[in-house]
Amino acid sequence: MDRGFFASRLKRMENKELSEFMSLIGRDDIISFAGGIPDEKIFPVKELKQLINKLINIKGHSLFQYSSTDGKKNLKEYLVNYLKGQEITVNENQILITTGSQQGLDLLAKLFLNPGDTVAVEDPGYVGGIGAINSYEARIMGIEVDENGLRIDILEKLLKEGEKIKFLYLVPDYSNPSGMTLSLKRRYKLLKLANRYNFYIIEDTPYRELSFYNKPLPALKSIDNNEKVIYLGSFSKYFMPGFRIGWICGPEKIIELLTTAKQNTDLASNTLGQELIAYAGQEGIIQEQIKKIRPYYRQKLVKMEEGLTKYFPECCSWKRPEGGFFFWVKLPTGIKSKKLLKQAIKNRVAFVTGNSFCSDYRRGDNYIRLSFSNNTLSEIDKGLSILGKVINNF
Amino acid sequence: MDRGFFASRLKRMENKELSEFMSLIGRDDIISFAGGIPDEKIFPVKELKQLINKLINIKGHSLFQYSSTDGKKNLKEYLVNYLKGQEITVNENQILITTGSQQGLDLLAKLFLNPGDTVAVEDPGYVGGIGAINSYEARIMGIEVDENGLRIDILEKLLKEGEKIKFLYLVPDYSNPSGMTLSLKRRYKLLKLANRYNFYIIEDTPYRELSFYNKPLPALKSIDNNEKVIYLGSFSKYFMPGFRIGWICGPEKIIELLTTAKQNTDLASNTLGQELIAYAGQEGIIQEQIKKIRPYYRQKLVKMEEGLTKYFPECCSWKRPEGGFFFWVKLPTGIKSKKLLKQAIKNRVAFVTGNSFCSDYRRGDNYIRLSFSNNTLSEIDKGLSILGKVINNF
Repeated sequence: MDRGFFASRLKRMENKELSEFMSLIGRDDIISFAGGIPDEKIFPVKELKQLINKLINIKGHSLFQYSSTDGKKNLKEYLVNYLKGQEITVNENQILITTGSQQGLDLLAKLFLNPGDTVAVEDPGYVGGIGAINSYEARIMGIEVDENGLRIDILEKLLKEGEKIKFLYLVPDYSNPSGMTLSLKRRYKLLKLANRYNFYIIEDTPYRELSFYNKPLPALKSIDNNEKVIYLGSFSKYFMPGFRIGWICGPEKIIELLTTAKQNTDLASNTLGQELIAYAGQEGIIQEQIKKIRPYYRQKLVKMEEGLTKYFPECCSWKRPEGGFFFWVKLPTGIKSKKLLKQAIKNRVAFVTGNSFCSDYRRGDNYIRLSFSNNTLSEIDKGLSILGKVINNF
Repeated sequence: MDRGFFASRLKRMENKELSEFMSLIGRDDIISFAGGIPDEKIFPVKELKQLINKLINIKGHSLFQYSSTDGKKNLKEYLVNYLKGQEITVNENQILITTGSQQGLDLLAKLFLNPGDTVAVEDPGYVGGIGAINSYEARIMGIEVDENGLRIDILEKLLKEGEKIKFLYLVPDYSNPSGMTLSLKRRYKLLKLANRYNFYIIEDTPYRELSFYNKPLPALKSIDNNEKVIYLGSFSKYFMPGFRIGWICGPEKIIELLTTAKQNTDLASNTLGQELIAYAGQEGIIQEQIKKIRPYYRQKLVKMEEGLTKYFPECCSWKRPEGGFFFWVKLPTGIKSKKLLKQAIKNRVAFVTGNSFCSDYRRGDNYIRLSFSNNTLSEIDKGLSILGKVINNF
């Protein structure tokens, strides 16, 4: 097949790393720390079943009809109210319901990016975010992450030197893969930069409700006085991902343009999923679920940290995340994560190599991402004991 | 807001016509022939409710979890079998499940189109198809439609003159808005051209099962020996649209690339919708539904033709479609459809102006699209009697 026949974006779209590790997720014979998916055992299925039946009785046939492109009014009402709880005051016209927050990223990239435009991202950062940006042939500018999140000083230096960016994409709370959180001081600093250098901040918040110790820091959107923040929300990690419902909150004019983009992309999000989440929100089921999952995942986080301390050599390092699903572990000098993965799979343990998350492919060589979300406590212990041995014998 | 800040595709994405007529659909005080949506009164809601409860019992928590990007295996199995009934032999790797077939169009445009590439479309043709192509800044080449569908002779002439196209997008059965069907002779001719001039044919089939008189003609895909046809399917018009589940069937390598594109776009389609349709297919509910809707919509088509004959002036013309949802009506010379619409809305009847569907905006001035799908028989009669009066008094 002549690949010249396809759009030039193709060479930027393919991610062999991602496809490879996705294929590891479903295998029963492997303890996999690879996926970043929630543990389905905690989904409130009994409540969902009751709610679906109730909805079919109330809404009848319309539950299976098209809904409008911008999204169901009652779901937007719930979100307006939900955002109030985060000190964010918006109206329904500032919200667009999307097919998962991955679609939010795709639509933003579609709206903003010409080939060659620059986008700043966390380094390491979310693979799917980088994938969406790559699909529109933008130039990716990776900004290092440390214990306090994105290194705003590095970003500032680049901007001062004359770099122009369309937007910065980041996950400020319990980021994927680093697990790190952007400090409050840096949040304020970042907003100032966005104003001074005229770029948007795309604040992606999938793990925000998965705060295991303290309340999350104020959202960038809540302390933004200049309409520079576009906020992406997802129900996937703290409620359920199967319905593919997410949302974007931003300046009204941008939401209007994104709605047009969505119309050409998939017409509308699925109706039953929107109604179900709206009702679950109104009836307090989502809030109940958030209360339940925090201690549930915290236990797993604690177990993973115990295992790392117990089984991994001392020269490995990590910082305990305050929430989310991931540990970002630095390997002993000289061990390359890709080689380690091959050895680990032979011993029936899997993880994701650090490379996948870094703008410069080689930068992540010495790191691995371990997710604790979808394993039992004993699997976490067993998997880490095996992986510790593999590292020690490497 | 500085519009130069956005991607250059923005100026191609906006479609005021479409937004305007979408806003007419929901109004209760208007008899609207504008929408092309199915009549929800015919959805098999009782069966769907039973099936959802059964599925939750069988599948449990996994029904609310992410599914893989390519789609649920059992839905693909159903489709392989369904396609066999159309003399199309494919395997599961040749199918990608999409978020409605609109996403199929978006992904194909994403995969194939660089700005300036040429795509041939029906003129008049489906607005959403044109929208998807416009979003990737391709050049649209409208090819006239007559009583036997797309004018293959015009396409051939352009190709002979040296036009190069990446693909042709068309709805060969009961097209939107023309209602016309591509003749068998033209189908064979088109496949020959695709081979000789090396382009793909995107065969979109939303109305194919809505054949009210005779069996539909062989699908282009079923008589294609050279892997030139990419087939788009949708459950929206003959089963239900609310879950946003569609599918693409094409050469394995292309399906693989489209799957990568989908991963960056929305990760996966919703799980419950996929499972529900797969089970409904396996248990014969979809087939039952198809049997039920044919006479149901045919009645409406007949009513609309009666009304047109009875109330419209003789100088209006149309050809009765053999299936689908639409009449494409030529107005008396000198009446512009946009002016007529204003007058019609004052009298509480709506339709879509012909312009919206034509590559050259002015070409559709003299036409209107009337949909009979979502009105009762008496609404069809009443609406057409009003519209007839408006035209007569124009």
